[in-house]
Amino acid sequence: MPHIELPNLPGIRGPMAFRPETSKPLNELVEVLLRHPNSLTQGERELIATYVSSQNNCHYCQSIHGAIAAAHLDDDEELVKSVKQDFHAASVSPKLKALLNIAGKVQQDGKNVTAEDVQAARNEGATDIEIHDTVLIAAAFCMYNRYVDGLATFQPQDPALYRERGKMVARNGYVAANLTNVVAPEPAELVSR
Amino acid sequence: MPHIELPNLPGIRGPMAFRPETSKPLNELVEVLLRHPNSLTQGERELIATYVSSQNNCHYCQSIHGAIAAAHLDDDEELVKSVKQDFHAASVSPKLKALLNIAGKVQQDGKNVTAEDVQAARNEGATDIEIHDTVLIAAAFCMYNRYVDGLATFQPQDPALYRERGKMVARNGYVAANLTNVVAPEPAELVSR
Repeated sequence: MPHIELPNLPGIRGPMAFRPETSKPLNELVEVLLRHPNSLTQGERELIATYVSSQNNCHYCQSIHGAIAAAHLDDDEELVKSVKQDFHAASVSPKLKALLNIAGKVQQDGKNVTAEDVQAARNEGATDIEIHDTVLIAAAFCMYNRYVDGLATFQPQDPALYRERGKMVARNGYVAANLTNVVAPEPAELVSR
Repeated sequence: MPHIELPNLPGIRGPMAFRPETSKPLNELVEVLLRHPNSLTQGERELIATYVSSQNNCHYCQSIHGAIAAAHLDDDEELVKSVKQDFHAASVSPKLKALLNIAGKVQQDGKNVTAEDVQAARNEGATDIEIHDTVLIAAAFCMYNRYVDGLATFQPQDPALYRERGKMVARNGYVAANLTNVVAPEPAELVSR
């Protein structure tokens, strides 16, 4: 049961509906970082978000962003799983591996990122914007994960629910998807506790 | 030296000037959390931000938010120091101590917050909004701290520089203060490396 009285929605959507003043910049930030035009694909950026969320052991965030990543990556759920388990062995580019290494350092402590980590990413072709965005995506998910877990939000277990919502967010984006909190009723099975 | 080529500004202001698309929601979030009307005073909220930043050992963030807190609290820098060192012994309200306890749990892992921690805050009069905002302030500073440290930003040592800027931000707010990145030249000593 959540620590405070929240609207009956899963994960971050409960506190977001509870406090629209803060959900506006929270939604805009993730929209810019994960959706806006970028030399990193949406699938790559969602993999970084998923990896950091799995390192923080946040069930809701790693499940929904893993589902969004898969929706962007030809529904390749095995790829998402392999990035979470051991990205070094996953079928992703050397550049993304170097960025995931930086993201993993940021997840622990920003000060852990070394000049060598950054040079390794550059050697694989990473740009300053890509390195910046990787650091900020990793940092931001250290926030989102703590927000979701720190309020003890409702986090459904059924992967099918995340899969369905993941496809919708991959198609429409975060800001648009969250409008459905208001305009569309939630399927009953997603909100029952 | 920063890991990427950033504008010559201290702390978070470098990456914020580098990437205006992400700095907009980042500034708006901190403005809502720390400045907007709230039953927690601006000084109390800045103390939560300062405490979390000190637990994350982020020099820039704990210095600037400590300076902003002091500016809101009759320039009581000793109070800020005592909250960072041992908030249980600091001259702050029992309610703020209970909220700082929650913030400290969130800093480590959101899942560390217990129903008992939340009940203890309620027993001191904390509302759902105050508990929500405490969790999100703590989570957000886990992001800002990692962003500042993860890019190895320039973090001046001289407390006088933070004191001056702290008074300005306390007076004008975050969004307005950051406009000076554009319209006012920075004092030379604040940008030299």
